[in-house]
Amino acid sequence: MLVVKKFGGTSVANKERIFNVAKRCVEDYKNGNQVVVVLSAMGKQTDVLLDMARDINPKASKRELDMLLTTGEQTSVALMSMALDSLGVPAVSLNAFQVAMHTTSDNGNARLKKIDAKRIKFELDNRRIVVITGFQGVNRYGDYTTLGRGGSDTTAVALAAALHADACEIFTDVDGVFTADPRIVPCARKLNVISYDEMLELASLGAGVLHNRSVEMAKKYGVQLVVRSSLNTSEGTVVKEESNMEKMLVSGVATDKNVAQFSVEGLENKPGVAFKLFHHLANHNVNVDMILQSVEHGGTQDISFTVTKEMADEALDVLERHGKTSLKCEKIAVAKDVAKVSVVGAGMVSNPGVAAKMFEALYDAGINIRQISTSEIRVSVLIDEKYADPAAQAVHDAFSLED
Amino acid sequence: MLVVKKFGGTSVANKERIFNVAKRCVEDYKNGNQVVVVLSAMGKQTDVLLDMARDINPKASKRELDMLLTTGEQTSVALMSMALDSLGVPAVSLNAFQVAMHTTSDNGNARLKKIDAKRIKFELDNRRIVVITGFQGVNRYGDYTTLGRGGSDTTAVALAAALHADACEIFTDVDGVFTADPRIVPCARKLNVISYDEMLELASLGAGVLHNRSVEMAKKYGVQLVVRSSLNTSEGTVVKEESNMEKMLVSGVATDKNVAQFSVEGLENKPGVAFKLFHHLANHNVNVDMILQSVEHGGTQDISFTVTKEMADEALDVLERHGKTSLKCEKIAVAKDVAKVSVVGAGMVSNPGVAAKMFEALYDAGINIRQISTSEIRVSVLIDEKYADPAAQAVHDAFSLED
Repeated sequence: MLVVKKFGGTSVANKERIFNVAKRCVEDYKNGNQVVVVLSAMGKQTDVLLDMARDINPKASKRELDMLLTTGEQTSVALMSMALDSLGVPAVSLNAFQVAMHTTSDNGNARLKKIDAKRIKFELDNRRIVVITGFQGVNRYGDYTTLGRGGSDTTAVALAAALHADACEIFTDVDGVFTADPRIVPCARKLNVISYDEMLELASLGAGVLHNRSVEMAKKYGVQLVVRSSLNTSEGTVVKEESNMEKMLVSGVATDKNVAQFSVEGLENKPGVAFKLFHHLANHNVNVDMILQSVEHGGTQDISFTVTKEMADEALDVLERHGKTSLKCEKIAVAKDVAKVSVVGAGMVSNPGVAAKMFEALYDAGINIRQISTSEIRVSVLIDEKYADPAAQAVHDAFSLED
Repeated sequence: MLVVKKFGGTSVANKERIFNVAKRCVEDYKNGNQVVVVLSAMGKQTDVLLDMARDINPKASKRELDMLLTTGEQTSVALMSMALDSLGVPAVSLNAFQVAMHTTSDNGNARLKKIDAKRIKFELDNRRIVVITGFQGVNRYGDYTTLGRGGSDTTAVALAAALHADACEIFTDVDGVFTADPRIVPCARKLNVISYDEMLELASLGAGVLHNRSVEMAKKYGVQLVVRSSLNTSEGTVVKEESNMEKMLVSGVATDKNVAQFSVEGLENKPGVAFKLFHHLANHNVNVDMILQSVEHGGTQDISFTVTKEMADEALDVLERHGKTSLKCEKIAVAKDVAKVSVVGAGMVSNPGVAAKMFEALYDAGINIRQISTSEIRVSVLIDEKYADPAAQAVHDAFSLED
């Protein structure tokens, strides 16, 4: 069996943890498996390097930042290879040049294009554990790139796809994917299986275990993921195409407190208004979510949407600059003390009662809904931030997701 | 003009020093020159990385050590490129893969084989300062290598040769090459010019400004070197093929205290004895210097030689193990409290009086000579270590080398 195992920065933050990871890999190896290990930079090393760069040049080019940052993973893989070797297992570390890991040229946010599997296969065939730098790639000019947020997960999934791996294990500091954040809903239950689509909804809703990009890539190439803890040997959660068995009605509740709500009121009811509004925001790199356009009332209409809290000031600035002129709106309102609570479940698509049941639970808990948005397998509501935790608990209870 | 400028680790140890170096490079650039900068790892970073490796695995493979160490120079070049950019000059950093810098496969002690100048020329033609990692290379398998001691100097000279540079400046913390170590002989004078051969003798005699390998390569490819200070703008010392002007009789006095003397006494006087002796030592990687074989007396003979002080125990161990059996010697003696003092000068070859004058100076100073060795342009004597400094001063005076 060929397994790809990915460990994040906290899992390799010091000597002790490096050896913990090494021992897990050795166990797999001694069971006769071919083992590929993908690592991030140690602990906070990426932040340390970014601070060094900022100190030298706050406007450092992304090309040079990537040149600097890629030293982080290279340090991790070299040390891990030494640790494996000291445990008596031959190992070899490879960076993005050595693999090679071809990406687009977008420094800081590159996309993987192609992975050469030749060197890796050669090393595996020689019964070595292959330790590979996550997060980094090389563009067509021979420059280092980095993959942006969730980059190492993406590297692991891409390697699993390129190598036709039998398993791709993503190690984190939690036991797997839960029906809700256990810090908010104490009785949350670990899921044994979840579909790619459900995971995608949960990932984008702030469940935070896996990054969207890696799940999308896993879905595209049919790579079965296992999310499991680096601290214990519990089974974790398998992320895969939904099976033929009955779909779960609701698989989890996600809470996202990093939300601000905008209302742009009194807009003319004519074609192009929504386009202009979101065009201005997109021009300033403001990502919007949960767009809602009201029905016309008295010749005008309102548009509401959400952004992340960090982007709220930028969004407000854009709206105020264009509000009176090109948008011709009457009022711009922003609420920063809001949160989004969502239920996700592949079974929802054929069960119309889910939304109603969720709203009932919130009503029973005395929580007012500010805005609603849905997808085929998700229902999200925007509520006051102070009610986020009780709302998650109430919804979790209503769908009997507890242990 | 195309200039290659090499700065060591202390010159880029912190933000302030990085900007000092950057400013020097910008000055050259603004004078219309094409500038290539070669850097070592920052300050003690290589030692820090070696300590990390030792902590994980004291027997780490050289392949993985090189993988780890090469992050050091990559960090330097990325930060330098950012500093240059912040001074308004476009710059690009390149590592050994990006250049590419082809070497033999000997990890930790690789030799440069070939440098691709294409990428560098492209960047120079686009009026960028090109900042290149010293010390590192890539072998035929696509693995990182390092060049061993003096590696970054060698990188700089090799780049100057490959790029047909007009100058190759090696920046150090002294003003250039001196007639003697100014800490020992206070009136020592800075040399304006010295030949490759003289520099080679001085380098191997512990003058420590330039490593042998880089001088050998400079000689081979006719690269004119300038050794100068990174702390001021004084002219430095030019190292080049000797000119047609009259050769200097003696250009300098070198002192090397890192010496231990061995005497292997009572060896049979028959073929193969010397071979066996040095073969055993070579097998244990003990480098020997200043070999002296005595004339036969009473059917046996003695052989003396020197090694560095660090190797003395290893050499003694080897000799004791083989002394009674294969070597059949009567006695092995070792003196660790010795030093080598040498005079170097290209004019010596046609002036037979140099050795006599040196011995006279030592005799006048009451210093006993333990052993003598000479080359065409050098006379070295082994003396008690405690007399090393007065010996250097006496010889320096005798040849009127002072300022």
